Amino acid sequence: MTTREQNDLITQTGPGTPMGDLFRRYWIPALLSEEIAEPDCPPVRVKLLSERLIAFRDTQGRVGLMDEFCAHRGVSLWFGRNEENGLRCPYHGWKYDTAGQCIDVPSEPVESGFCNKIKLTSYPCVELGDVIWTYMGPPELKPPLPAFEWVQVAKQSRFVTKRTQECNWLQAMEGGIDSAHVSFLHRYELKSDSLHVSKGAELTAKTDVAFEVIETPGGMVIGVRRPADEGQHYWRITQWVMPFHTMIPPYGDNALNGHAFVPTDDENCISWCFTHHPTCALTDYELHVMSNGGGIHVSLIPGSFRPVINKDNDYLMDRAAQKANKTYCGVKTIAMQDSAIQESMGPIQDRSKENLTSTDNGVIMARVRLRKAAVAVRQGKQPDGIDPATHAVRSASIVLPQDVNFYEAAADALRAKEGVEHTSV
Amino acid sequence: MTTREQNDLITQTGPGTPMGDLFRRYWIPALLSEEIAEPDCPPVRVKLLSERLIAFRDTQGRVGLMDEFCAHRGVSLWFGRNEENGLRCPYHGWKYDTAGQCIDVPSEPVESGFCNKIKLTSYPCVELGDVIWTYMGPPELKPPLPAFEWVQVAKQSRFVTKRTQECNWLQAMEGGIDSAHVSFLHRYELKSDSLHVSKGAELTAKTDVAFEVIETPGGMVIGVRRPADEGQHYWRITQWVMPFHTMIPPYGDNALNGHAFVPTDDENCISWCFTHHPTCALTDYELHVMSNGGGIHVSLIPGSFRPVINKDNDYLMDRAAQKANKTYCGVKTIAMQDSAIQESMGPIQDRSKENLTSTDNGVIMARVRLRKAAVAVRQGKQPDGIDPATHAVRSASIVLPQDVNFYEAAADALRAKEGVEHTSV
Amino acid sequence: MTTREQNDLITQTGPGTPMGDLFRRYWIPALLSEEIAEPDCPPVRVKLLSERLIAFRDTQGRVGLMDEFCAHRGVSLWFGRNEENGLRCPYHGWKYDTAGQCIDVPSEPVESGFCNKIKLTSYPCVELGDVIWTYMGPPELKPPLPAFEWVQVAKQSRFVTKRTQECNWLQAMEGGIDSAHVSFLHRYELKSDSLHVSKGAELTAKTDVAFEVIETPGGMVIGVRRPADEGQHYWRITQWVMPFHTMIPPYGDNALNGHAFVPTDDENCISWCFTHHPTCALTDYELHVMSNGGGIHVSLIPGSFRPVINKDNDYLMDRAAQKANKTYCGVKTIAMQDSAIQESMGPIQDRSKENLTSTDNGVIMARVRLRKAAVAVRQGKQPDGIDPATHAVRSASIVLPQDVNFYEAAADALRAKEGVEHTSV
Repeated sequence: MTTREQNDLITQTGPGTPMGDLFRRYWIPALLSEEIAEPDCPPVRVKLLSERLIAFRDTQGRVGLMDEFCAHRGVSLWFGRNEENGLRCPYHGWKYDTAGQCIDVPSEPVESGFCNKIKLTSYPCVELGDVIWTYMGPPELKPPLPAFEWVQVAKQSRFVTKRTQECNWLQAMEGGIDSAHVSFLHRYELKSDSLHVSKGAELTAKTDVAFEVIETPGGMVIGVRRPADEGQHYWRITQWVMPFHTMIPPYGDNALNGHAFVPTDDENCISWCFTHHPTCALTDYELHVMSNGGGIHVSLIPGSFRPVINKDNDYLMDRAAQKANKTYCGVKTIAMQDSAIQESMGPIQDRSKENLTSTDNGVIMARVRLRKAAVAVRQGKQPDGIDPATHAVRSASIVLPQDVNFYEAAADALRAKEGVEHTSV
Repeated sequence: MTTREQNDLITQTGPGTPMGDLFRRYWIPALLSEEIAEPDCPPVRVKLLSERLIAFRDTQGRVGLMDEFCAHRGVSLWFGRNEENGLRCPYHGWKYDTAGQCIDVPSEPVESGFCNKIKLTSYPCVELGDVIWTYMGPPELKPPLPAFEWVQVAKQSRFVTKRTQECNWLQAMEGGIDSAHVSFLHRYELKSDSLHVSKGAELTAKTDVAFEVIETPGGMVIGVRRPADEGQHYWRITQWVMPFHTMIPPYGDNALNGHAFVPTDDENCISWCFTHHPTCALTDYELHVMSNGGGIHVSLIPGSFRPVINKDNDYLMDRAAQKANKTYCGVKTIAMQDSAIQESMGPIQDRSKENLTSTDNGVIMARVRLRKAAVAVRQGKQPDGIDPATHAVRSASIVLPQDVNFYEAAADALRAKEGVEHTSV
Repeated sequence: MTTREQNDLITQTGPGTPMGDLFRRYWIPALLSEEIAEPDCPPVRVKLLSERLIAFRDTQGRVGLMDEFCAHRGVSLWFGRNEENGLRCPYHGWKYDTAGQCIDVPSEPVESGFCNKIKLTSYPCVELGDVIWTYMGPPELKPPLPAFEWVQVAKQSRFVTKRTQECNWLQAMEGGIDSAHVSFLHRYELKSDSLHVSKGAELTAKTDVAFEVIETPGGMVIGVRRPADEGQHYWRITQWVMPFHTMIPPYGDNALNGHAFVPTDDENCISWCFTHHPTCALTDYELHVMSNGGGIHVSLIPGSFRPVINKDNDYLMDRAAQKANKTYCGVKTIAMQDSAIQESMGPIQDRSKENLTSTDNGVIMARVRLRKAAVAVRQGKQPDGIDPATHAVRSASIVLPQDVNFYEAAADALRAKEGVEHTSV
């Protein structure tokens, strides 16, 4: 059972919290590259781990991510002028470079050196896979760059979106590693919602299910076993890479899908959605479908990252479709089914009231792993999931003989290897 | 004077509060039968006494009212599937019967008996008078069923609606037992707004008023006396039945009206509106008027129980109508005049700032009675208003000789008797 | 540096706070005369220094400003009937005169004298300059009437508006005495937004600026010096009169402009905007421009005092205009640039995080002056800015020889003198 204290610990990621310290040891997806597409484009507000920040791209194309508010008298730099290699506060013209260093205070003589003493909190950024990542931890502990396969494939093989979710990051992430819910919540979308029909989707409809969770150096693999042909098992294998990356088992010809669940503050998160194909470009058809809210992606309110289907419109609940077995819970699309269900638990789920079963083993083990990692970081240890080698993994769906150890038998399928197609049934 | 502590006591009805314990000894109107009209219809969210519940009607027509959130991992059962005699959580398929008993956990073998150990808090329900009532107290203390006359008349003699009110239940209820405000707040509606013209309405316009409050076994009667013909008094007599039922004195040929003010939480309540005729069916004309927001009923925002006239639109204040003596306070309809005035006192009126007069005796006595009842319940005593005999009362308007005791002289008029018309002038 | 405690002290003006006590020693603009234009017109809700009040004009034209809520049972008198020299509560007809004295309780016999004992907190009002002013302090300390020049000129020489601002009064007021921001935030409006072109606007564009702040009996003058022709300086001189009045230096033929920043509560204020000409009537052209949101005035949402450009629409940010140097911060109009910037600091700016420079001297000195005044008032002393003689000042823009003391050389220009035109370059 999770106590209230444990629940607080694993859900709170603001500055100074144990889980916040852990998160600040990883590279974190902060915003889409396209949000600040051009040099000297408008700055963008970003809230991460309860910190209010401003992102901008300077004249030379360098990315800055720093405290949203001017060090002078607290004006939001969202109103700032991004020009000549710096972001200038609109109130009195104080100017900052991408490192947060103040480089001009017009009212003070240059020779006074005044502006040298002014520096905003800022975080190093790197652009990888159409995403701007940041590192918010101690500079001397900055880890190597993230090396997820979706980051490394060619641009035309990748499709990335993000959306807001109105709940704590952990209940969103727990949905991502909880394969058990697929046969219920997403039952009627197993065939229709994946882009290409597959045999795996048919097998997944079976409810005679067994689970195995294996701890890995970077996180966990969760294997879900269903009966296949005589003497065989159909395995759907999910990856979790600490602290918030998940990889969804694929179907047939479909590309690979994954998420990252990044805390905005303790009651909101961003669900990042990654689709990629290890060996070929995504097709126009696939791109068209995903751009229109298909697959794991969703339609957004224009000018925002909020889904069209959301809490304020009761998720466009369609009771007739639910009754007619077109959707299991009355909400359209797999992604919004997950969001709706997770948000319905409240801003921060009270885990002290839960009743868990064996199919929650993945969730239970992830919580323990996160708690231990937070403690380890406090004791000066390096957390798991930082080593880029732990990122080079894949989810898979695979048919294996009965009586084999799935993790050993699927070892190749679970490894990301350049130029090698993924394993999908 | 009411102290802050006393004010807290009589206004707070959440779990574990003294007034909450008192309320949990009564049958409480929870929702309209028509909100869950059919077997296997969509479940409905209900908040009562600060508890978040879900109501549903199963395949056999049985009504369930239980904790809104699944015992597994806290998902709202509002997304649930209501089928095959139970409500199934959309996340992992856990299923509950109308008693809140978990009857299926798909991931666990039946023989494990796992689901037998899972039970949601649930409350017994009964359907009476087109309303689903619930009892939220200790099972061994469950009282006999409510026996108000409006509950017992034939369906065609009754019209029931409900609406949200954005304030604490008590200031709504106090409006219901405060006959003194009628000559002011509702002055210009006395004739126009009742369905049928009556001599009583004319008499009510007189402001030469005297009050008498009599405690009864189930609550109070409030008699308001105005001059009538030589040697006579016109009496308007309101009933209050503990803890929140009021009955409004009738006019001429009009049906009887009453309310129940049921706490949603401490800052919101539901105003239930009951119209009934003891001996004949309501006419098409009456039904038409009431369905369009006439009498004590109001027009609601479609898909909700929120009045069209509400706080966010400043109650559609019409200053010209107020100046022209078409309404006394600028708000249209008697019901919304009450709501507007009561909501304007704030979410919970601070009674420590009041200055009460003799016409507030009914209000004062009701507060004392409620406080005493809360204490009595804590001491193991049975509260008043539980005995169905105390429900069999009526409001009345009646002309009596001067110098008689109105409560004795009107004894027959104040008793509900099947097949006997009510007393109304 | 400002500590958190000091920040609380200078920003909080509710009842019983030190700064609240200071504010309650001054006449305060409460509402526009035109908000209660006629005798017996509808009452208006007013929130001042965190107190909820109701304003009305009685049958004889007298103005009342008193507690919004009826002394009986707390109903808002906004629903009240304003007739026959008093405001009557719509619930039970209690009636109050403009002094808050209860003059009728219909349920009580006149001879009981009951209503004599009921009196709402009320504040004396005076109408001056199209504004209703109130005094909320101890009656025995009521100061002489305000004597600002804009109050005293002929009606046709004055234009007054007000607008809500969603931040603490102090960060709005600090913008008003901070001349340094003009060359940045308002850079591109210096020429276009003043009603008449002037040489001063050209000179103001120069960024070679020096500041001098002089304490005056009623507040401060802030002189800003820029180079003019050989051997001369162009001075722009702002007046601050305690506690919240500012006067903006004029340009060429333009009228004089000023503000008062009046706390609604600690997180909202009213920005009053005053334009006046000391010797002639405002022209139709000027009135037309200002009525349409020009100069220091802004366009409001009909039926409210909220600007059309506001926080909820991200101040209609126009990035293209910002990039094209049409506005410095992307927000249209000088007044809304100030509002946007000030609101972006948060509801109450945390001044403990600031880094101030020499150009903030005016702001720093004003804070110290306010703190000292609050302490002085606690010690029984009279605060500065109460003596009407301190109101008879003007802002000015003036060219002076180098090496003269600007405050002495501009002494005549800084004095309000009936029939004498203001000094403006």
